[in-house]
Amino acid sequence: MSAPVRIVGTPVSPFVRKVLVFLRLKNVPFEIDPLIPFFANDDYARLNPLRRIPLLIDDRVTLADSSVICQYLEDRYPQPALYPADVALRARARWLEEYSDTHMRDVILVSLFFEIATKPFIWGVEPDANVVARARDVQLPKILDYLESQVPEDGFMCGDFSIADIAIAAPFRNLKWSRIQVDADRWPRTSRFIERAFAHPGFADLAPIEKAVARTAVPEQRAVLEQLGWKVMAENFSAAKPRGL
Amino acid sequence: MSAPVRIVGTPVSPFVRKVLVFLRLKNVPFEIDPLIPFFANDDYARLNPLRRIPLLIDDRVTLADSSVICQYLEDRYPQPALYPADVALRARARWLEEYSDTHMRDVILVSLFFEIATKPFIWGVEPDANVVARARDVQLPKILDYLESQVPEDGFMCGDFSIADIAIAAPFRNLKWSRIQVDADRWPRTSRFIERAFAHPGFADLAPIEKAVARTAVPEQRAVLEQLGWKVMAENFSAAKPRGL
Repeated sequence: MSAPVRIVGTPVSPFVRKVLVFLRLKNVPFEIDPLIPFFANDDYARLNPLRRIPLLIDDRVTLADSSVICQYLEDRYPQPALYPADVALRARARWLEEYSDTHMRDVILVSLFFEIATKPFIWGVEPDANVVARARDVQLPKILDYLESQVPEDGFMCGDFSIADIAIAAPFRNLKWSRIQVDADRWPRTSRFIERAFAHPGFADLAPIEKAVARTAVPEQRAVLEQLGWKVMAENFSAAKPRGL
Repeated sequence: MSAPVRIVGTPVSPFVRKVLVFLRLKNVPFEIDPLIPFFANDDYARLNPLRRIPLLIDDRVTLADSSVICQYLEDRYPQPALYPADVALRARARWLEEYSDTHMRDVILVSLFFEIATKPFIWGVEPDANVVARARDVQLPKILDYLESQVPEDGFMCGDFSIADIAIAAPFRNLKWSRIQVDADRWPRTSRFIERAFAHPGFADLAPIEKAVARTAVPEQRAVLEQLGWKVMAENFSAAKPRGL
């Protein structure tokens, strides 16, 4: 590889997490700027008009969106395969990824993690109790009911560990940080599936890094990543202050 | 082909449109149930938990989400290719699709088409003038500025006609039905690009069907499609009345 792969986005994001699991399992070295999207400066907006994370930059592309990035990494670094080889299973894996990236995102990320963890941490603002209650008591149980009908008793979603498992499991880290448990009596298959996925090296190796970043004040996060042995990008796309709520 | 391909979703939807362009260009015969998502009944919710359209059913999959469906059709019916062969161009095409399916959807579909066309047509309710004004005067110009920086002077987005062109052009049909024009003086490249894309047989052949369906009352749409020579699915997932606004 000539130019190194650079990833912009905090490891606390489930979408960055998907890409980091891919890079780890495909053994692709990378540098990171742990940008929190609310801090994205105008230089970043020029690279990524939606100011979302992650963004991947390498010698050939400047690419936004975790699904597009994961597919690019699969195309460019095919081994080990993280998409099923069978056409129908691959389609199912992509659907599960889409379900997680849209609906599970809306409930777990936007209505729970953002309210319970992000708002107090970044702006010192209390969660909206109505939004949290509806997401926790109405929307999340429906998601877990659906997953319970989809996850296998043992093993992974579509055969070998794949994009489906990575995408479905990733937001549950943020659910935990929102101090919400998945009731193992009510959703036993899903609970065990999440444990299995997080025990996979793709996720397990990332866990200490994520925890350290999540506990660190924003201005010190780059230094903490370096102390933990990660390579931090020269570019820093973070503004000093977050945009207003 | 053993079982025919079945598509659930109205041709008025830009997401159904993407899939219909794929089926047409790949010459895959299909049957359709022109479901409008607000009419989706409980049988449909069992097949597609988010009650969105399109849904593809064939001998191997029951598959939701237009991006997942288009990729499945590409994998199963590779010719003619509708994704670029080059890895970096393919990634760019997928990003443009994602941009259209998320941000352009939010502005053109949800804030404009839904307010201006869907609400009066289905519920007899007036548009929210504030939502429309913000989308038309603030958000849409930013989208067109971005597209103007991305579309080529001539030809298509990523070489041959591809998923990028199909996804980017598709919602502009709905913008037109919302009686909003793209100012060709302000965004000349984008205007010409949209015209070129809609002149491609993938879109051009669909135009009369879409127009006919858009002008027909919901209960008569299946009959109109049959009169126009389309095969309509035996299953009808439409309830008699739409869910409440």
